[in-house]
Amino acid sequence: MVNAGAMSGSGNLMDFLDEPFPDVGTYEDFHTIDWLREKSRDTDRHRKITSKSKESIWEFIKSLLDAWSGWVVMLLIGLLAGTLAGVIDLAVDWMTDLKEGVCLSAFWYSHEQCCWTSNETTFEDRDKCPLWQKWSELLVNQSEGASAYILNYLMYILWALLFAFLAVSLVRVFAPYACGSGIPEIKTILSGFIIRGYLGKWTLLIKTVTLVLVVSSGLSLGKEGPLVHVACCCGNFFSSLFSKYSKNEGKRREVLSAAAAAGVSVAFGAPIGGVLFSLEEVSYYFPLKTLWRSFFAALVAAFTLRSINPFGNSRLVLFYVEYHTPWYMAELFPFILLGVFGGLWGTLFIRCNIAWCRRRKTTRLGKYPVLEVIVVTAITAIIAYPNPYTRQSTSELISELFNDCGALESSQLCDYINDPNMTRPVDDIPDRPAGVGVYTAMWQLALALIFKIVVTIFTFGMKIPSGLFIPSMAVGAIAGRMVGIGVEQLAYHHHDWIIFRNWCRPGADCVTPGLYAMVGAAACLGGVTRMTVSLVVIMFELTGGLEYIVPLMAAAVTSKWVADAFGKEGIYEAHIHLNGYPFLDVKDEFTHRTLATDVMRPRRGEPPLSVLTQDSMTVEDVETLIKETDYNGFPVVVSRDSERLIGFAQRRELILAIKNARQRQEGIVSNSIMYFTEEPPELPANSPHPLKLRRILNLSPFTVTDHTPMETVVDIFRKLGLRQCLVTRSGWVFPGELSISLQRRLLTFVSFRRLLGIITKKDVLRHMAQMANQDPESIMFN
Amino acid sequence: MVNAGAMSGSGNLMDFLDEPFPDVGTYEDFHTIDWLREKSRDTDRHRKITSKSKESIWEFIKSLLDAWSGWVVMLLIGLLAGTLAGVIDLAVDWMTDLKEGVCLSAFWYSHEQCCWTSNETTFEDRDKCPLWQKWSELLVNQSEGASAYILNYLMYILWALLFAFLAVSLVRVFAPYACGSGIPEIKTILSGFIIRGYLGKWTLLIKTVTLVLVVSSGLSLGKEGPLVHVACCCGNFFSSLFSKYSKNEGKRREVLSAAAAAGVSVAFGAPIGGVLFSLEEVSYYFPLKTLWRSFFAALVAAFTLRSINPFGNSRLVLFYVEYHTPWYMAELFPFILLGVFGGLWGTLFIRCNIAWCRRRKTTRLGKYPVLEVIVVTAITAIIAYPNPYTRQSTSELISELFNDCGALESSQLCDYINDPNMTRPVDDIPDRPAGVGVYTAMWQLALALIFKIVVTIFTFGMKIPSGLFIPSMAVGAIAGRMVGIGVEQLAYHHHDWIIFRNWCRPGADCVTPGLYAMVGAAACLGGVTRMTVSLVVIMFELTGGLEYIVPLMAAAVTSKWVADAFGKEGIYEAHIHLNGYPFLDVKDEFTHRTLATDVMRPRRGEPPLSVLTQDSMTVEDVETLIKETDYNGFPVVVSRDSERLIGFAQRRELILAIKNARQRQEGIVSNSIMYFTEEPPELPANSPHPLKLRRILNLSPFTVTDHTPMETVVDIFRKLGLRQCLVTRSGWVFPGELSISLQRRLLTFVSFRRLLGIITKKDVLRHMAQMANQDPESIMFN
Repeated sequence: MVNAGAMSGSGNLMDFLDEPFPDVGTYEDFHTIDWLREKSRDTDRHRKITSKSKESIWEFIKSLLDAWSGWVVMLLIGLLAGTLAGVIDLAVDWMTDLKEGVCLSAFWYSHEQCCWTSNETTFEDRDKCPLWQKWSELLVNQSEGASAYILNYLMYILWALLFAFLAVSLVRVFAPYACGSGIPEIKTILSGFIIRGYLGKWTLLIKTVTLVLVVSSGLSLGKEGPLVHVACCCGNFFSSLFSKYSKNEGKRREVLSAAAAAGVSVAFGAPIGGVLFSLEEVSYYFPLKTLWRSFFAALVAAFTLRSINPFGNSRLVLFYVEYHTPWYMAELFPFILLGVFGGLWGTLFIRCNIAWCRRRKTTRLGKYPVLEVIVVTAITAIIAYPNPYTRQSTSELISELFNDCGALESSQLCDYINDPNMTRPVDDIPDRPAGVGVYTAMWQLALALIFKIVVTIFTFGMKIPSGLFIPSMAVGAIAGRMVGIGVEQLAYHHHDWIIFRNWCRPGADCVTPGLYAMVGAAACLGGVTRMTVSLVVIMFELTGGLEYIVPLMAAAVTSKWVADAFGKEGIYEAHIHLNGYPFLDVKDEFTHRTLATDVMRPRRGEPPLSVLTQDSMTVEDVETLIKETDYNGFPVVVSRDSERLIGFAQRRELILAIKNARQRQEGIVSNSIMYFTEEPPELPANSPHPLKLRRILNLSPFTVTDHTPMETVVDIFRKLGLRQCLVTRSGWVFPGELSISLQRRLLTFVSFRRLLGIITKKDVLRHMAQMANQDPESIMFN
Repeated sequence: MVNAGAMSGSGNLMDFLDEPFPDVGTYEDFHTIDWLREKSRDTDRHRKITSKSKESIWEFIKSLLDAWSGWVVMLLIGLLAGTLAGVIDLAVDWMTDLKEGVCLSAFWYSHEQCCWTSNETTFEDRDKCPLWQKWSELLVNQSEGASAYILNYLMYILWALLFAFLAVSLVRVFAPYACGSGIPEIKTILSGFIIRGYLGKWTLLIKTVTLVLVVSSGLSLGKEGPLVHVACCCGNFFSSLFSKYSKNEGKRREVLSAAAAAGVSVAFGAPIGGVLFSLEEVSYYFPLKTLWRSFFAALVAAFTLRSINPFGNSRLVLFYVEYHTPWYMAELFPFILLGVFGGLWGTLFIRCNIAWCRRRKTTRLGKYPVLEVIVVTAITAIIAYPNPYTRQSTSELISELFNDCGALESSQLCDYINDPNMTRPVDDIPDRPAGVGVYTAMWQLALALIFKIVVTIFTFGMKIPSGLFIPSMAVGAIAGRMVGIGVEQLAYHHHDWIIFRNWCRPGADCVTPGLYAMVGAAACLGGVTRMTVSLVVIMFELTGGLEYIVPLMAAAVTSKWVADAFGKEGIYEAHIHLNGYPFLDVKDEFTHRTLATDVMRPRRGEPPLSVLTQDSMTVEDVETLIKETDYNGFPVVVSRDSERLIGFAQRRELILAIKNARQRQEGIVSNSIMYFTEEPPELPANSPHPLKLRRILNLSPFTVTDHTPMETVVDIFRKLGLRQCLVTRSGWVFPGELSISLQRRLLTFVSFRRLLGIITKKDVLRHMAQMANQDPESIMFN
């Protein structure tokens, strides 16, 4: 027995019933929505608009506007998300450079903007533009020497601490939900959970501001994950402007899915990858209509960001790379090794980070979030400054590691010994022996790798906005670049080895270390998040060619397999479990052989199910029942000791209906009888006016038999998005006084089902946790 | 009440029941599968393998192989689909050229291969390579003049007729399922329908061969749609090698979804677009695991095709284009106009084609498929030859129309009047006035447009393999190129008009007619198929840059809206309806207010539901019932006139079980009692041995109450993939002799539900057709 929730039942009866009272159809905070019901409410709304639209031209225009509002919301989300991303990029650029110095011509210029007029174009000389002054130059007029170094060091640490302190204070005071990457919570919200304020305006504002601060402070975190949260806040804001979305939690989630796509789109400049990320990683209910709209929102966002042009290069993508040489089959081996590294890093990171976060939750550590942030920032800044690869911002680092060494490149990583006889073509430089700079860079990179691995574990999860994409990619890019340089030098010095002989002749450009960095980055990101298609597509959009998709895919597949071998959960699922959110993963398979009867409440020995009767309980009785229990709803039966089910009433709507009736309806007192039947019961003459509640009764709640395998029940909960379902049994026990022949006759025309119990989403999740040998009490919300 | 089909119920009882008999769990031809049941069978299988894998190392290795078989199947599909696509491309190339002439050095060389050694590189002079001889040159040694022209004309027609005759004969004799594009049927199969042989080996072979023949014959059809069918045949073939897929119709469909992605991937050289096409257009049940594997299959297929290199240019994509100028905001107006054209074309095409196909089905026309093909081929060849734009193969035409006119381009379309003072840069040629060639080309293109529009309507649906992508794209590309040239000339001659003044200065290269052709192609393809995201992504992969995605998207959106305004169905859905396949579209919204009781069988006045009793019918009774009805299954009740439901038995399994028992079990005769209970009924002493059938009983069939809105029922059928569900009512009528107090007592402990009827997928579809004012009898299969 199946039904679409109270509204559809009541939808049919709307004409001869009272006006709907306020807040009906809304949900309490930290509760799960009923997708079937939301969907049927939207169909009702749609039907009403369609039938009205035939009445007058004005109504017809209104119906058109309603149909178009989805596209308008997408456009607005795209514009706002793109703008915010652009502003964040510009601000981060400026504030990151502020830690090192200031621009004399205008203090709000970043180092690069300040030196745009300067003639120096190479990477090393960029520092020497006269308008840009390091703090030591400005304060004590020294640019070299130990004291200048120490002064700059101190200023760097001070600014970092200032930014971090500001950020954590803002988050604590104004918007506690602005912390973290937000993706675990957004996944949970999209799966049908209510967290009020999580996507609110304050969260949007504070997250945007603090994101700039924390990224600038040099902590090992990225802005890409939080940008998804920011975009979803935009989505929530704009959907609240249209009643189609603001009044329907299901429809609102369609908008949020699209907003998540727009967020990834601006984070990486990859609109298709963004849509696939939303589809694969974040969304729960993702109809094809939404796919198309998400794509639109993602494109608008990407083009808005490009027109702001924060990277100053008209490029859409975050890390634009162009390689000049193809890859060779033999290189698949190091690529797969990088995949293994990525998987191991993913496992290590998730285990350590979750252990640390659990410690934070359960010990006194969690009581000093500001102090924690200050300490981590201080340690990060102190260790990071001496090493050029940790001092620069992480996205600059990744960008440098991804890049192929062109002929004019002057960075330390490109310090190769050139053949003096060689004419210098712009592309296609043959492999060369490494110079001193490269060897120095290798040491520094190795130290940076260890530092990033350790510090990221402690950073992610603090009470500040913090994304994981960039640190993970940095770890992978460092490892990849090191492996790439290794392979390159091996191939240069040992052309005659059998593995190189076929594809790497002397004087050829066979190995591109930048590609290894990219493959490593994809592997590490995949190991942590367990993304697959979207990861490859995002990386494909960065390189813009299908050429390098095979290495990326090989690494992503390997990394996922290696990581999955140690534990199925990605970092986001792990954080969802840590926080006990009621998230029913569509990707999980439930393979146990339990039955509905093993999961339903009440268990054996527990008190019987709390039920309402259809026409004999008073308002006071119900209020007491509501006060004494915390169930989300009650089956309605014919009489108190009867198990004959007539429907299901939601707790929240009972409360609202009683409150509303007490306020507005005359004659409703504590001992008024509440009835769910069509007609009021026959009452004694002087009894108070009864209260009709058929409107909030779901006439056909979803039921399963007690023998239904849990596998199917889980499937139904997932696919139909239920909140609860009732369990019945095809059993019958006749009272002793009936004759056998009478019993036989009874059996000829009725099918008997006893109401046995109820299964809620929480019960399902707890059961799944139990089956997976986890603590069922970790599922906290319903 | 919900359940996972007979297998899960019986799965629990397997230990103490007989061996499963053959063919249990398979379906009859032209029947719908039960997704829930397939899923639960796969889980059972998986559970068995997991528990066995702990027993020995050999079993562990077997379980690993089982887990890997999905990837192996994908690899094989990719390899075979890519190879077949490459072979088809090469063969089509050769045979298309065979209509015009033959290569003297080796007759199996196409014109291009033949002339590879020649020095002529320009487009016009390519014809003059001496090794390539036109038929007139070869046969009468004349290359110019009227008689040579007529001879060539005749040879062209003769070859076309030969190819077409061969194709239609092969299809008729060996594989009738090889005709058409196959996509409507594949959609239906993927939604859970059985059409035996549709994806068989013969179909694969004949479709591949005849596809080459019909494309070479010059008919207005493409190979892209049929390639999806070919890839799905590969998928079916390889899935039959692994019992994981061959024995489970649900799992098999996962493989087929991925194969469809591989098909589009090789058709256009667009792996990501292929995956999205499969997701958006073809697939029904598409879990994320399949997404990732589809992507793998699509990539393998694309790279296999590239390594065969049929286009001789190392390009992955079918139409590689590179434009040098950006587009301007003002150009959105013609782009949107092209979108409107695409929508109108889509509507026109679908209406006319469906009308013609219906005529073919219902009149004598359908009896002469060979003649029809011959006539259409003859007309096509006769009209096509004189016009160079219809004579060349359609994909060459599209390729020419998409291309930007470079400085060295010598085709008629690029016959612009050059400024003699101008130095010639390779790219970035300013807009120039059109020469005579361009005006001639415009006339010829206009004629070609009309010809293509008319002839495609009659071609699609004949009894030969025929795809729609290429003809649709050709129509759009011709229209787009014409509009593009028009806008270009307008901008050139009227620089001072207000609409051009801002972005098109004299001497600038402002309009790219090739881009218009591409936008037009996207619009027309969108109008016919109603693809959205996948269309844009495929086009994006062709151009390789995000730059032109906005025009494409604007045209695709407009085209879809315009076409949707005239009718919601794309061509594939229209053909599905025409053929009466039971396809429950996930994209449709069911918004009517009907209830389950309005749809269920039996209707008022119809004879009561055919039911089985649990322990009183003989084998003969059941055989009679099966013979007299054509229901797919029967509810099992306690006794003949009882409505107390104990389960549901599938017709096919009843037949198989009885057949099996009669053959193998001793003592089973026509008057043996069949029982579905745990224990055999008490029978008179000399009665024959009873037949236990509990094994095939689904103990908890899916039920809804009669008041459930059909909206919800449709949703459940879609999302859970049901075949049928039972309808019950919470009603009770007590026999008169019961006292009121007894009735009250009865009500206290049981919930009564009467079995009222049954709703099958066919009933749902017929109801939906009725609600949409269509003929419900058009739904033919169950």
